[in-house]
Amino acid sequence: MDTPTPAYSITIKVSLGNRPGTLGRFATALGDAGGNIAAIPGFEAKGPVVMREIDVLAKSPDHAREIVDAVSHLDGVTVLDWWDRTFRLHEGGKIEVNALCPVGDAHDLAMAYTPGVARVCTAIEREPMLRHTHTIVKNIVAIVTDGSAVLGLGNIGPAAALPVMEGKALLFKEFGGVDAFPVCLDVDTPDELVETVVRMAPSFGGINLEDIAAPAAFEIEERLIDALDVPVFHDDQHGTAIVTTAALRNSLKLVGKQAGDVSVVISGTGAAGLAVAKMLHDAGVGEIVGVDRLGAIHRGRGGLHDAKQWFATNTNPDQKAGSVSEVIRGADVFVGVSAPGLLDADDVRAMARDPIVFAMANPDPEIRPEEVDGLAAIMATGRSDFPNQINNVLAFPGVFRGALDAGATCITERMKAAAAKAIAEVIDDEDLDRNYIIPSVFDRRVASRVAGEVAACAAVEGCVRPAPPPVPSDLL
Amino acid sequence: MDTPTPAYSITIKVSLGNRPGTLGRFATALGDAGGNIAAIPGFEAKGPVVMREIDVLAKSPDHAREIVDAVSHLDGVTVLDWWDRTFRLHEGGKIEVNALCPVGDAHDLAMAYTPGVARVCTAIEREPMLRHTHTIVKNIVAIVTDGSAVLGLGNIGPAAALPVMEGKALLFKEFGGVDAFPVCLDVDTPDELVETVVRMAPSFGGINLEDIAAPAAFEIEERLIDALDVPVFHDDQHGTAIVTTAALRNSLKLVGKQAGDVSVVISGTGAAGLAVAKMLHDAGVGEIVGVDRLGAIHRGRGGLHDAKQWFATNTNPDQKAGSVSEVIRGADVFVGVSAPGLLDADDVRAMARDPIVFAMANPDPEIRPEEVDGLAAIMATGRSDFPNQINNVLAFPGVFRGALDAGATCITERMKAAAAKAIAEVIDDEDLDRNYIIPSVFDRRVASRVAGEVAACAAVEGCVRPAPPPVPSDLL
Repeated sequence: MDTPTPAYSITIKVSLGNRPGTLGRFATALGDAGGNIAAIPGFEAKGPVVMREIDVLAKSPDHAREIVDAVSHLDGVTVLDWWDRTFRLHEGGKIEVNALCPVGDAHDLAMAYTPGVARVCTAIEREPMLRHTHTIVKNIVAIVTDGSAVLGLGNIGPAAALPVMEGKALLFKEFGGVDAFPVCLDVDTPDELVETVVRMAPSFGGINLEDIAAPAAFEIEERLIDALDVPVFHDDQHGTAIVTTAALRNSLKLVGKQAGDVSVVISGTGAAGLAVAKMLHDAGVGEIVGVDRLGAIHRGRGGLHDAKQWFATNTNPDQKAGSVSEVIRGADVFVGVSAPGLLDADDVRAMARDPIVFAMANPDPEIRPEEVDGLAAIMATGRSDFPNQINNVLAFPGVFRGALDAGATCITERMKAAAAKAIAEVIDDEDLDRNYIIPSVFDRRVASRVAGEVAACAAVEGCVRPAPPPVPSDLL
Repeated sequence: MDTPTPAYSITIKVSLGNRPGTLGRFATALGDAGGNIAAIPGFEAKGPVVMREIDVLAKSPDHAREIVDAVSHLDGVTVLDWWDRTFRLHEGGKIEVNALCPVGDAHDLAMAYTPGVARVCTAIEREPMLRHTHTIVKNIVAIVTDGSAVLGLGNIGPAAALPVMEGKALLFKEFGGVDAFPVCLDVDTPDELVETVVRMAPSFGGINLEDIAAPAAFEIEERLIDALDVPVFHDDQHGTAIVTTAALRNSLKLVGKQAGDVSVVISGTGAAGLAVAKMLHDAGVGEIVGVDRLGAIHRGRGGLHDAKQWFATNTNPDQKAGSVSEVIRGADVFVGVSAPGLLDADDVRAMARDPIVFAMANPDPEIRPEEVDGLAAIMATGRSDFPNQINNVLAFPGVFRGALDAGATCITERMKAAAAKAIAEVIDDEDLDRNYIIPSVFDRRVASRVAGEVAACAAVEGCVRPAPPPVPSDLL
């Protein structure tokens, strides 16, 4: 880790001598130790000393300890306590379940619980579609994982995956107003995962699959789509594809190229790479070449299965072979969903005019933005500390918001394309810039635009369940 | 339904002529139609008319329509709209999932989600017990049902059961501060249910089994207790047993009898009846006689399984046989967890001095309180509209609050007994009265007292998991 980051930040609680200059010396020492002050959230004056809690970005746990050590021996400074902000934030979990209605007196209880609730149960028993209007199903998505491919950490299992799924639930609510609940499954096979999700489906209005290893993830998603009448969406595939397509759309506009004319090299042919390739293929991109550890995928390569077989059949019309460095020559676009450091400056130099580089490996990209400065026309990563952050949070909250609002029973390719278009079009032509090809993840317009387009598209596609029947009149 | 109830209440939105007496005539008409005004939540004066939304308790949906009809033709009254309050309250579900931490800027995101969250995942991967401190597991309980025995409605299935489970989640949060999430499972066998809960266990810190039909429920609970290292509690059994034991404890005190001297007839030998019998047996009650549809259970009856076999082996020392009316002669206590109307006044007359009658069939008791007026020393039901409501909500929020606080791995018989004692002791001796043998479900002292006693007992019982290890020092 090269730069201090909030991920490794700490809070230092200090007592500072209440004399001018003490804070300055403290801040200087922090800076000399390589720490960045993130915030000084206020203070409490206590006579001769001032108590402060100061947030400091560090590079690593060891660096954090060095920083604390560096300020511990300053004159007029007493370190009272310090803690890791990330671990502190995760203590006790990051989401809670709250009431949407009061249960403060006997009347409330008689309506929300027994005996009144029995009327609602009976109504749903008679008209099962009422579960979409009179229960949480209307607004709730399961975030399902088996913990087999969590972030860049690999197969860490369902218990260790929970903090990520909770984080995802935060983003669903914050950006899409969607209630989401983490379902971390201790399962060994795709059969078990599918079976378990089908069994628990009555509690949910949608299924977001997350961090499930390919190729099992493909089969799991397909089978769940077939088995359930609510939207199923593997975010690692389709979320990534949607935001990548949105970014490419705006990038091509900037460099004045047409989708049908460009050649795209995709490094990484797992879940994300496949979905990106399919979506760009549907969008009419001229040439797509997928590259894995063994080089470009073409029909001549043996032993290809699943995702790679799709690449062989549907992409690389000229049957290019060789490494990334070989096939990238003359290409217009590089899309990396693979591993750090796969690309170098010479590779980018060998691309066609105005190279577009999306180096989205997380947290360390295929090539760092500094290395392509002056070479790439457009550079994007998955990181928040560089311009053009291509992040799934631009897609999934709005996609599910729109699907739930529309009563969609699935999420079609056209709905995903509508989402990509909506994200791209949040940026007006006059604002479009090589450092602003994709909206900020905090741009509040994104999710509502995406939701609107996805819902409208669902209606056109005809994958919307009929309006639920009224409550049976003898019950109401 | 004999009396107007909130469960069937409606809101009538009316425009009333802004002249003295209009509201009076309106209210009189409502009363003449048999409606009870629950609340008039304020009004908006608009020149010559006043707009009001008036909550009215009715006896049934038909009765609600009659009431609306009765006030629709009054001079100076215009009914603008009306709706069923219970169905309205359930629209869109009764719980939501909310954030416990902010995600408003890039720093928040870097700590709550990527890249910071990976540190927490790695810590849990290395020290799995950290899931009890750094995820929602610390405070979350799954409310698990297969919808096979929901309220008095029977096997209505998992989707139709969801409103009850949401209601239960409300009560967990409101009274115990416990986050709870409804898990309605579409399963056909105990094997499937157990297997599914074991697979999803990584997301939860406790399992509350709910409305699962006996005898499957017994096996399911036993197997889950064996399989999981978090508390598993079938509320229909143990919640009912705890509150019944608490009520009996105070009742015996009032009538001056000792547990060892009394004879208790339990009508209903399903999940609740068995749990009540076991708990009273452990509490040293002198004689217990269980009665099912075929009469008293004794060793001479053939074909007894499961719960009934337990009754045969462990209760009815004198091998009484016959109907409820026969075996209740001379009994001190009647506990009904069965069906309406099973008991009559003559049965109560035939009991020993100071009869104690807990008629807890829901919503209609084994005998109505009016019928035993002057006969029973103490009368209790499960209903909120009579004194002495014996309701599980007095138990489960505090039981799980205590278990989670203590880091308990199970809920032992002694912990349940501690809960019963805590509930009973909320009422001071000087306040104890034949119409106040059990605290109100809205008594805020109950859950915290129960939690404290359950947690203390867990520590004594030694069923508490060790304090989680610290976060590995190279990660922190």
